[in-house]
Amino acid sequence: MATGRTMWFGAGPARWPEKVLERAARELGPRAESGLSILELSHRGAEYAAVQENTVALLSRLLSVPESHEVLLLPGGATMQFAMLPANLRPAGSSADYVVTGNWSKKAALLARADGKVRVAATGEEDGFREIPPTQSWDLDEGAAYLHVTTNNTICGTQLHEIPEGLTAPLVADASSDVLTRELPLDRIAVLYGGAQKCIGPAGLGFVVIRKDLMERAPETLPSFWRYRDHSKASSRLNTPPTALIWLAGLMLEWIDREGGLREMMRRADERARLVYEALDAHPAVFEPVAAPEARSRTNVAFRLRDRDRERDLLELAARDGMAGLSGHRSVGGLRASMYTGMTVEAAGRFAGLLHDFAERSGRVGA
Amino acid sequence: MATGRTMWFGAGPARWPEKVLERAARELGPRAESGLSILELSHRGAEYAAVQENTVALLSRLLSVPESHEVLLLPGGATMQFAMLPANLRPAGSSADYVVTGNWSKKAALLARADGKVRVAATGEEDGFREIPPTQSWDLDEGAAYLHVTTNNTICGTQLHEIPEGLTAPLVADASSDVLTRELPLDRIAVLYGGAQKCIGPAGLGFVVIRKDLMERAPETLPSFWRYRDHSKASSRLNTPPTALIWLAGLMLEWIDREGGLREMMRRADERARLVYEALDAHPAVFEPVAAPEARSRTNVAFRLRDRDRERDLLELAARDGMAGLSGHRSVGGLRASMYTGMTVEAAGRFAGLLHDFAERSGRVGA
Repeated sequence: MATGRTMWFGAGPARWPEKVLERAARELGPRAESGLSILELSHRGAEYAAVQENTVALLSRLLSVPESHEVLLLPGGATMQFAMLPANLRPAGSSADYVVTGNWSKKAALLARADGKVRVAATGEEDGFREIPPTQSWDLDEGAAYLHVTTNNTICGTQLHEIPEGLTAPLVADASSDVLTRELPLDRIAVLYGGAQKCIGPAGLGFVVIRKDLMERAPETLPSFWRYRDHSKASSRLNTPPTALIWLAGLMLEWIDREGGLREMMRRADERARLVYEALDAHPAVFEPVAAPEARSRTNVAFRLRDRDRERDLLELAARDGMAGLSGHRSVGGLRASMYTGMTVEAAGRFAGLLHDFAERSGRVGA
Repeated sequence: MATGRTMWFGAGPARWPEKVLERAARELGPRAESGLSILELSHRGAEYAAVQENTVALLSRLLSVPESHEVLLLPGGATMQFAMLPANLRPAGSSADYVVTGNWSKKAALLARADGKVRVAATGEEDGFREIPPTQSWDLDEGAAYLHVTTNNTICGTQLHEIPEGLTAPLVADASSDVLTRELPLDRIAVLYGGAQKCIGPAGLGFVVIRKDLMERAPETLPSFWRYRDHSKASSRLNTPPTALIWLAGLMLEWIDREGGLREMMRRADERARLVYEALDAHPAVFEPVAAPEARSRTNVAFRLRDRDRERDLLELAARDGMAGLSGHRSVGGLRASMYTGMTVEAAGRFAGLLHDFAERSGRVGA
């Protein structure tokens, strides 16, 4: 499967390891236990229950989820949570704080505003989200129902490196794009959530790691499907869950676990980021990273060429070498390398090599 | 793959044709066009767009969707729609009518009650949902925001055979368990919706075929993710959709189309139901169908043995012959054969044969 395989740097859905794709294809057919495909298993039966419990147990272990929290697997991804979070955690009349560090946190705040009060505690919008507003500068409401942050911002490629301590309001963190590539201390995070399609695998699945007491806040008028407590009581099987996606996430998490777990995923993320940033920094006359140096993301590296006209050339050279998904987000332009859990260090090295070659050739041309 | 394969009569997720499972396994790996797996494709790219458009086009054609309606593919299945429907279609202060013909319509009505007014226009609960209340007896509110029906009820195995005509309120129909096995005239149905896991394939995906003008009813305070209009404007890609599930649904719909489309699916559904009901009716001293004769479903056949103690024996005999998923719902007991689009006529015949054998042996034992 590896031959002729594209190196996928897309912002999400993300690259899958070949081994996991091959295993998924191999195990999609009738299973030894029942003679049924995973697609056919009843979500109320013991065989499927074991599949889901495996996925939940792996995620709990890899994230070191404490007793105080519970893991829910829900359909719909992070955007559905943008609506569920305020509906469950912000009682009528109260307000929620949002730290806006990119287009996704801006969207989360905007959607939360539709049916209740939102305060922007800090925003990096004035400088185009190139920096993360320092924690000390956040204008926090002590009575806020919660404080929402995005741990990593895919468009400019910035990251909230320190999860703040000593907050009054419960901290809610969208970690769609860096979960399992960094430590996320759940003693400081009341709700850790995100879409699975970048770091956990399949698109269309959401994970919510929530402090159990917070689930009691939901108003009685909230319909059952939108209520965390009801999903919790039903062990994420309030209705027919996306069984195939939960199975696929389990295959991916097993792979992560066997490769060395969170520690190894962190090592690889650091190594991939180091390789690419070093190539960019070695040629400041050619490359211009989007993020401010202290805000750099380990999973999304966004940059422009000082000579904008040559960006297309670089994308074409990358494509010729089998690298794809490298166009920057339309709001920023340029290039962006997204490197999540499923990305190899080797591919990051190949891309870094291409950047060196390109810059050196540019130097000669310019000389 | 067919050897040793279990005949799956489960109530949903449903049986998949071997050919579709084999194709899914074969095509899960890197695609010729991009060198990427379907799991990796960007939901904003042209290659994935073609996959989704194929699924929507097939569903539109198989259901003869008119210009007045639009097909949305959403995460979450029918239960999520139980909440989205009233939130979008029932303006503040108005009321919705529900015809309650089984546990699922009861649940739909209950969930709609959480945040607004519901009237029960008819219910079959007094006789345990064995009959469908006749259309003439429905106590309709002419000012209702909509009238909700369930076209087929999986637990007792009953079906609304005639879609009513000349209604004042827009008709909203949950067809999770009989879509693509019967004609569902969209000139009489304003919203046809359901979960995909019985008749269209993958669990965790919902379909909503909605009259376009109704999407304008949603209040401004409704968060974007819960608003049909916003999903429509974004061509069901408001956020990262469950790309793998939409692809799998497309494989299933292509199979349905190639096999002969709706007409052939209807013929097979009629034939499967005829085989099983004939076996039950041939031995009235042994079998006791749950549904009243005129309300019988073509996709779910529920029955008891007059000798309750022998139900387990029959389930064991079926299991020995490779048939599974035949236990009745816990609220009814007995047995239930669920036969959706992916079920072969042959398997239905095998089950009917088992029923004949069992009854004849019972007769001899009893003689």
